[in-house]
Formats: sequence, structure tokens, C-alpha cells
Amino acid sequence: MTMTREDFLALDADDPLAHFADEFYLPEGIIYLDGNSLGAMPKAAKTRALEVIDQEWGEDLIKSWNKAGWFNLVEKLGNKTAKLIGADEGEVIYADATGLNVYKLVAAALEMRPDRKVIVMEGSNFPTDNYMVQGLIKQLDRGHEIRFAEDGEILDAIDDDVAAICITHVHYKTGHLHDMAAITKKAQDCGAIAIWDLCHSAGALPVDLNSANVDMAVGCTYKYLNGGPGSQSFMFVARRHHGKAVQPLTGWWGHDVPFGFERDYRPRKDIRQFSTGTEPITSLAISEVGLDIFLRADMNEIRKKSLKLCDLFIELIEERLGDYNFKLVTPREHNRRGSQVSVSSENGFPIMQALIDFGVIGDFRAPDIMRFGFTPLYVSYVDVWDAVDRWKNIMDTKAWKREEFNQKGAVT
Amino acid sequence: MTMTREDFLALDADDPLAHFADEFYLPEGIIYLDGNSLGAMPKAAKTRALEVIDQEWGEDLIKSWNKAGWFNLVEKLGNKTAKLIGADEGEVIYADATGLNVYKLVAAALEMRPDRKVIVMEGSNFPTDNYMVQGLIKQLDRGHEIRFAEDGEILDAIDDDVAAICITHVHYKTGHLHDMAAITKKAQDCGAIAIWDLCHSAGALPVDLNSANVDMAVGCTYKYLNGGPGSQSFMFVARRHHGKAVQPLTGWWGHDVPFGFERDYRPRKDIRQFSTGTEPITSLAISEVGLDIFLRADMNEIRKKSLKLCDLFIELIEERLGDYNFKLVTPREHNRRGSQVSVSSENGFPIMQALIDFGVIGDFRAPDIMRFGFTPLYVSYVDVWDAVDRWKNIMDTKAWKREEFNQKGAVT
Repeated sequence: MTMTREDFLALDADDPLAHFADEFYLPEGIIYLDGNSLGAMPKAAKTRALEVIDQEWGEDLIKSWNKAGWFNLVEKLGNKTAKLIGADEGEVIYADATGLNVYKLVAAALEMRPDRKVIVMEGSNFPTDNYMVQGLIKQLDRGHEIRFAEDGEILDAIDDDVAAICITHVHYKTGHLHDMAAITKKAQDCGAIAIWDLCHSAGALPVDLNSANVDMAVGCTYKYLNGGPGSQSFMFVARRHHGKAVQPLTGWWGHDVPFGFERDYRPRKDIRQFSTGTEPITSLAISEVGLDIFLRADMNEIRKKSLKLCDLFIELIEERLGDYNFKLVTPREHNRRGSQVSVSSENGFPIMQALIDFGVIGDFRAPDIMRFGFTPLYVSYVDVWDAVDRWKNIMDTKAWKREEFNQKGAVT
Repeated sequence: MTMTREDFLALDADDPLAHFADEFYLPEGIIYLDGNSLGAMPKAAKTRALEVIDQEWGEDLIKSWNKAGWFNLVEKLGNKTAKLIGADEGEVIYADATGLNVYKLVAAALEMRPDRKVIVMEGSNFPTDNYMVQGLIKQLDRGHEIRFAEDGEILDAIDDDVAAICITHVHYKTGHLHDMAAITKKAQDCGAIAIWDLCHSAGALPVDLNSANVDMAVGCTYKYLNGGPGSQSFMFVARRHHGKAVQPLTGWWGHDVPFGFERDYRPRKDIRQFSTGTEPITSLAISEVGLDIFLRADMNEIRKKSLKLCDLFIELIEERLGDYNFKLVTPREHNRRGSQVSVSSENGFPIMQALIDFGVIGDFRAPDIMRFGFTPLYVSYVDVWDAVDRWKNIMDTKAWKREEFNQKGAVT
């Protein structure tokens, strides 16, 4: 059956999440399918920023560390995030950037398994996780090695030599989703620590860390959680490990008595040990706004809409762009994918540039992947129709062959 | 000779830096002597924040990584800061928090001196530097130790066993200033790497890293540089060490080809290797505003006024508060102090609480130190008079004995 634009408008009219779109700003005419890279701006972010700058910094100055709760913001935001990822109060904290937090968690895990030397990771993962662990291993110089495994090989790669696994839940490039519970169980059956990177799953789909008995996790807030450019990362450490898992980047915020100004480090026995030092507060404070929106939304509804948006997008590509040889990279099965659709094309780069120029913002990942992220709180069904419609127009008119779309610059 | 308020007004009338005060916001009636903890807000910070949020995030979204220069902001701000601390273009970069950067620099230095096991540090320093190096040593587990030395003992503590010194230029509590050139020379004569923490000197006094032949340095931007709450830290690595000094927190921003998404880490050969990963951009962008003000000010004039403000403050304390047994902790000699005045008093805590209540904001550091920071771009001479005047009133009326000032809470 051939679909029409009206079918998509009808889906929007029935969408229980549709009203959330009003809480985000998007430029006129733009279909934004890159929320998996930088989430759109919640309108309330501006109000919050002005509050931090005018009132908390400008007016209250140094008092804001207590009065505005700056010092405890890392825990407050952690507790809000915990509700979105199946963690308990006191198990999540904000700090630093994702890579640094991967380093902390893997370092803590290796200390907990001193006789084991292997870390299982996905070689094709967004590379910063690999880089950080490579840096750690080189620094420790105790014979650790990364055992790289790709999707489908991970369970088999886990054996009794493994100290920890550190796997990204949804793959940044292909969008494939790993079975968190099964991989965690295999890891723990082998005596390893299971660490999950939620960069492309927190806020994108229901995550239930404690149901899966995950040991530790790290995640990003500037993608699906709309925290703002480069906003801080969060970490989860299961309560059973508090006081036993100790990370080595031992700054004063993780000290047992931070304002005691003692000469020697004494680790706190809770999640705060995983923080380091003073956080860039303006960025951190703004990221609370996105969390507050998510806390009012039903994550199961988000997942339902996300899958439907992606299904329809795939269907339309096949129906309307069938002549142009785009290959679906993301798995078709619902339980095998996150909230993005990736297709490969040898002309992926200029076609994506043309799409962006025509107001459909996705992104390109070398060598040939076109990525489209679907964020159900501000992407509508008709956006899916219109995106493919513009895309078809670009293909039919060969607009993507224009010189301007074929000049490679820095691509983020 | 007894001074009067009119003398201070006359000094303000003659002050070549006086006009800079208009560029900062301070609440009505407040005398802010805590810019050594959190610098006051430049009025332009608000404009810049709105630009980042409305235009760069809201409107331009992901394009801002290139279009608004987000990805290169760490270098752009580094180059601006270089001019304030006697470094060259390409020698300074912004990243993460001070503690993490101390860790990176000391780790890189220890790798450069693999046969040496001692790091000289000041035990009474703001403890995060010590904590981070303690974490590093414990993690490396190769027999490194910190040799703690206090002011006056540092030169003698440096010998041929020393791999690195890591000393804070101006002491956070007492305000004493170390002789950077002499200590660096002694360290290098012994074959050690000289690392300086500029948290209380960058923006407070002329710093000339390359004249002193410093190897590495780290600094804070939210104090004297008015970068905003918790704004990112900067690092200096002398060009002669680029490609040789390699830090172990190897995130994708320090990779030779960050957008190549290679599986394995390859360090960049320049200062960017010292960055880690995606930075909280809103906070980072706002901190440029403070730098731009400093680039229009003459650092020698700032120092001249800073010393005069502190001298007058000390003189007035002695002249007007002589009955109350405040002991000067900060060295009196100009070449031995930074831009703060610390006094000790057994009743320091409630007296500081009372001062804050009466609009004179300094801070208290246990067990008995009252700290007053002087930031010549927005503190006037008459502020010095008025601060001591209010202080005298608090002492004469015994207002500090009120119960409300004697309840200890968290003090930052």
C-alpha cells in the first residue's frame, strides 16, 4: 500500500507525545534528525541560563555554592537521571566528559579484578572509549589488553580471563542495540565487571540497569537528553560496589570531607567518589532542563514512537528511494536497534550535504554512512514524510551532484 | 598619619583602571573581596551566553561545531590566555578541571623521568593537587612518593631524585608568592620538570612562564579571570616538550586525527594532546568574555593597583582594628605575595559571617584564616576604606557575637 503525507499527519494527530514538541526550539523549516549528536534546545534552557548568570553568579556570587545548590548539582542531576535508566537514588553522579568517566570506571574495575588482564570492547565503537582504555593500559603497564569483538562476537569473547567488559549499548554508527542483560550475565558468570556506555541509549529507549544487574555505566547528556553542547556526562555505579570500587582521578570533590582541606586523600564511600573537581556550572545547570522534560514523559511511549518513526522512515526509503541503491545498515528487528536509522551509500557524503542544505539535518560518518537520529519528543511523523520527500527530490533532480556539496570539510 | 575616606576617593579619581569596573556587575552595596574564589560577572557574559544558547545551539545546532568554532575554542582561548601568562601561541589549551590537568601534567612529567620517584609539592597547598598526584602514584604503583615541603623549604627539597616539582605560585590560604624563576631553575638544574599551578596568580599578577623557562603549568579561570562558576581550566606545555610529553587521559580530542574515528589512539604532537574530549561549551564560551577584558588591561597596572589596595588594607587594619588582635598571615613584602590579604583570628569564622552580612564578602578557611582577595579591575580604593570601616563597626558593636553568625554550615 502506498502511503501519503495525510497518513503521517493523521499519526501526528493521534500522538500522545506530540505536545512535547512545543517545549523545544527548532529553526523554521528544519527537520532535525541529528538529536543523536546534539539534542535540540529546550526553550526553558534560556531561562535557566539567565537565572544562573544573572541571579546565581551575578547577584549571589560565591554564596550560590550553597544557596543555589551548585555543589550538590552533580548528585541532584544524578538522581533525576537515575529514574530514566533504572538506577536507584544515590547510584548516579554527573562529572566531566564521557571519556574521562570511561577511564574512571574501567580503572576502578581493573583494581577490583587484579589477577585478570583482558577488557572486552567493540573495536568499531565511537573511538574515545577505546582510546581512554588504551591510555589506561599503557599507563598501568601491567600486561592488560583489549580484546576487540564486534556485534555478534561479544558473548563468545567473554571468558575467565576477562576483568571487565565495556560495551556501548547502541552503536553510534550503525544503531545496533546490544542485549544488555545477556551480555552482563555472561560477563558476571565469568567473574567480570560489566560496564555499559549509554551515550546512544539514555533518553532514546528504556534502560533498566538494575534489572540487568549492571555493575557500572556511563552516559552522555548532550544527545538524546538535550543537555546542551558538550554538557557533562553521568556515571552509574551499583550500590553494592560503593566503597569498594575506587576510581584513581582523586580530586577534592570525591574526598570524604571536601571542605576539611586535609592534606591526604581519603575516598568517600559513595557515588561522589566518582566525581573529580569543580564542574563548569553553567553548562551543568542548563542540562537539568532537558531531564525535567524527560521526567514528565513516558519512556515506553517514547520507545513506541521511536520504533514507529524509524520503521516508517525505512519503509519510505524503500518505497520512494528504491532506485538509488541505499543499503540499510541498522538492524530491522526492534530489539536489535536504538533510535537511529543508518544507511550506506557510496555518495553518502554529498547526499547528506545536500539534505542539510534542503533543511533535513542528519550526519555522515566515514566511509559511507548516512545517520538519521529520531527523537520522539520533537520529531513528528510528518517530519519523516517530508524528510524522505526532500531526499527524493534531491535524488531525482541530481541536486546532490552540485560542486558545493562535494567539498569535504571537517565533519562532526 | 591618619587616613580618611577622602584620601581613598582621591586615589580612585586618579586610577587608570577605574573605568573597567563598569564592565562588571556587582550587587548594590556589596564590597566583593572574594574574586580569588569566584570572580565577579562581566556584564558581557550574559550577551555571550544568550548568543551560545539562542543562536549557536538553538538556531545553528550541530553546525556550530565548525561555524561557531566550538571545536577550536579550547585553542582559541588558550592563545588568548597565553598573552596573560608569558606563553607563546600554541602553548596553552583549555580542558577539564584543574585537578584533572594537574594529573595529566604530572603523569606526563613522570613518564619523561622514568628513573626518578620523587615529586616535590607543598603539603599545605589547596589539597586537590596533592589528592590527584596521590591518586596517580597509587595507581602507578612504582614507588613514587610526594616530598612535601612548605614555603621556605622548597629549594632545599629539590635534589637529583626529583622527577618533578608541582608548586602553586600563590598560596590559596596565606597568599604567599613563590619565586617561580628560582625554583624552576633549581628544579631544572637537578634534572626535574617544573610544573606550576597558576590558580591564584593568572590574572592576579604578571606571570611570565617562558622567561622563567617553566616546563608546564595549569591554571583556573573562574577566580581572577572571571570565567564564570567552575569554568574550565587551562594548561601550558612549553613547545620544546610537544610530542615528547604525552598525557595518559587519551580522549578523542587529543588524537592525531579526531574525525578519522580510527580504532587506536595516536597522540597529536602539539598542545591539543592535553585535551581529552567534548567540553561543556556554554561554560567555556562564556569564559572568553573575561579574557577579552584582561587583554585590554595592562597587567603591570593591575599589579601596581593590587599591591596598593593590599598595602592600604593592611595599613587600615593595623590603624583602625589594632585593638582586636588580628594577625597578618600574608607576607608584607611585595615580591612575596599575590593579590590577597589573609589574617588570622580565633573568631575568624563568626567575624567573616558578620562581614558578609554587612556586605563585605571575603571568605574563611579553617582553622582561623580570613581571606580577602583584591581584584583591581572591579575593586576600588574606597572599597578598601569602606570594608575596614564596616569591619570596625562590627568589632566595636560586637555584632559578630550574634548567634546567627556562629552557626557553622558548609563553607566554600
